[in-house]
Amino acid sequence: MKTKILSALRENDDYVSGQELCEKLQVSRTAVWKKIKQLQEEGYEIEAVSNRGYRIAFCPDIITAEEVESRLKTAWVGRPVKYFPEITSTNQYAKKIAEEGTPEGTLVVADEQTQGKGRSGRIWRTPPKTAIAMTLVLRPKLPPDKISMVTLVMGLAVARACRELYHLEAGIKWPNDVVINGKKLCGILTELSMELTAINYIVIGVGINVNIKEFPEEIGGIATSLALELGHETNRAQLIAACMQYFEEYYEKFLESGDLSLLMQQYNELLLNRDQKVRVLEPGGEYTGTALGIDRYGQLLVCREDGSETRICGGEVSVRGIYGYV
Amino acid sequence: MKTKILSALRENDDYVSGQELCEKLQVSRTAVWKKIKQLQEEGYEIEAVSNRGYRIAFCPDIITAEEVESRLKTAWVGRPVKYFPEITSTNQYAKKIAEEGTPEGTLVVADEQTQGKGRSGRIWRTPPKTAIAMTLVLRPKLPPDKISMVTLVMGLAVARACRELYHLEAGIKWPNDVVINGKKLCGILTELSMELTAINYIVIGVGINVNIKEFPEEIGGIATSLALELGHETNRAQLIAACMQYFEEYYEKFLESGDLSLLMQQYNELLLNRDQKVRVLEPGGEYTGTALGIDRYGQLLVCREDGSETRICGGEVSVRGIYGYV
Repeated sequence: MKTKILSALRENDDYVSGQELCEKLQVSRTAVWKKIKQLQEEGYEIEAVSNRGYRIAFCPDIITAEEVESRLKTAWVGRPVKYFPEITSTNQYAKKIAEEGTPEGTLVVADEQTQGKGRSGRIWRTPPKTAIAMTLVLRPKLPPDKISMVTLVMGLAVARACRELYHLEAGIKWPNDVVINGKKLCGILTELSMELTAINYIVIGVGINVNIKEFPEEIGGIATSLALELGHETNRAQLIAACMQYFEEYYEKFLESGDLSLLMQQYNELLLNRDQKVRVLEPGGEYTGTALGIDRYGQLLVCREDGSETRICGGEVSVRGIYGYV
Repeated sequence: MKTKILSALRENDDYVSGQELCEKLQVSRTAVWKKIKQLQEEGYEIEAVSNRGYRIAFCPDIITAEEVESRLKTAWVGRPVKYFPEITSTNQYAKKIAEEGTPEGTLVVADEQTQGKGRSGRIWRTPPKTAIAMTLVLRPKLPPDKISMVTLVMGLAVARACRELYHLEAGIKWPNDVVINGKKLCGILTELSMELTAINYIVIGVGINVNIKEFPEEIGGIATSLALELGHETNRAQLIAACMQYFEEYYEKFLESGDLSLLMQQYNELLLNRDQKVRVLEPGGEYTGTALGIDRYGQLLVCREDGSETRICGGEVSVRGIYGYV
């Protein structure tokens, strides 16, 4: 019911009468009043003015299920939301509930991760209440070799959300880091469970540095946050909802074509290093070339110095600018 | 301690003195006697003869962790054993504990599965106390495309165990069903959890029809059990231990070469339909040809009627004899 009240209050910027809320929710005025009281205790500033009704005057930066769900404009992505004040890792929990049958679209969010993980077992830090750690559960009926494309879809959605909400020049470092001013804002870790030829489920973990003001020295040079880039704090639930909305839009386009052909233009517009020199680090060695953009399968086309074109599939390959991380 | 007592009593066929057991286990004679008592209550017939000691006269058909572990001759495969009288599915539980960090080699066994699963979501029946349902957890450092080979390794191990223990003509229906007299004895379901390019873990579920005497009508024509083939019941723990032993031997050969080159000869000797006509059913249609055997990657070589050779990779493809299931 709290979700419904928040949704109703958000539908317009004006006051919503108690009578209207009662009718929408099919409950008594006392019941509405009690829930409003609870929301106020959680930190929402809700004005109550006689003859006019209720209005959200200030919304705290919380990411409870009710708060996130009341902001969602999606049909199925991010529904339901499972919120935790603290969790070992949203990916780990998402895999557990995916095993137990949670519906496609379930989103796990947490205010803090104690054992957050990045790619290849690296640590991913999610300090309390200043970042987004979220994991989306999907059950695509796709061959396993297409799953890496879903990760690119999420990278594109996060970059787009940051651009639309904050007008920041968020770009994508292939395959799926979101980068601002040459520093990493967001990392994505996709894991999947499968039989030999069929997907059981995939989980896409997204970590976004939102209101973090200081990074440990060892990553300070390569990490950034929205607060550092904007000069002020911002609301995490709004960003989560926007990411889910763009993801749903892009993912449905991806399913429609079965590849990235409907998205590659947008992706390539945000691709850092496009038409620029890059170093490609492979297990066997490294070479330099010019990054041309992704193809419909999400592979990066690189024109080597001898003029030949290479398609890079991810995995053990790392692509960097000639100077530094990006 | 029960495992150690059972192991000690199994080491030779003769009596083992109480004194010897005390020394091996570093406990008092009373402690040994108490555990012997417990084992007798579980159904073990253990003779105690003064001046000679203890001897297992009869071992019930149970598959507790102590019973299975005391029979294992492996270095690491099947260690530890997690036993359940009833479980939803050994694969499901194995995935759960694999997420939580259980060591490589852990074996989950159950006397009954209530939601056992075969490939592609089909039901796999494990009626109480008459079959083997077990799942092995592995954490191979292998590229994902090699995992299907591990399934073939397990199929080979189960077929070999049935041949050695019971002198039955167990064969393999590519890729990994174990078949006797044209009917299916054993099914294998491998599932894996991975990042985009690296395996987290794999679980290999093995279902063997051991002492089942009657099958439901719909599968009676294509399923068999060891008891039906042998004409008498047999001991499940012994078979589990043998499967683990052969699996360890073969799996280490597989890791040594990185493919099936050291095992393909043995596999092909047990391959049903070898050098015989088969129908290949693909999503797009079907054709007939002659099955030649597997290559080092576990793909089935089929010589089509026009003389061309095809390599079949599994997945959506089904290979059958010209008449019926095998």
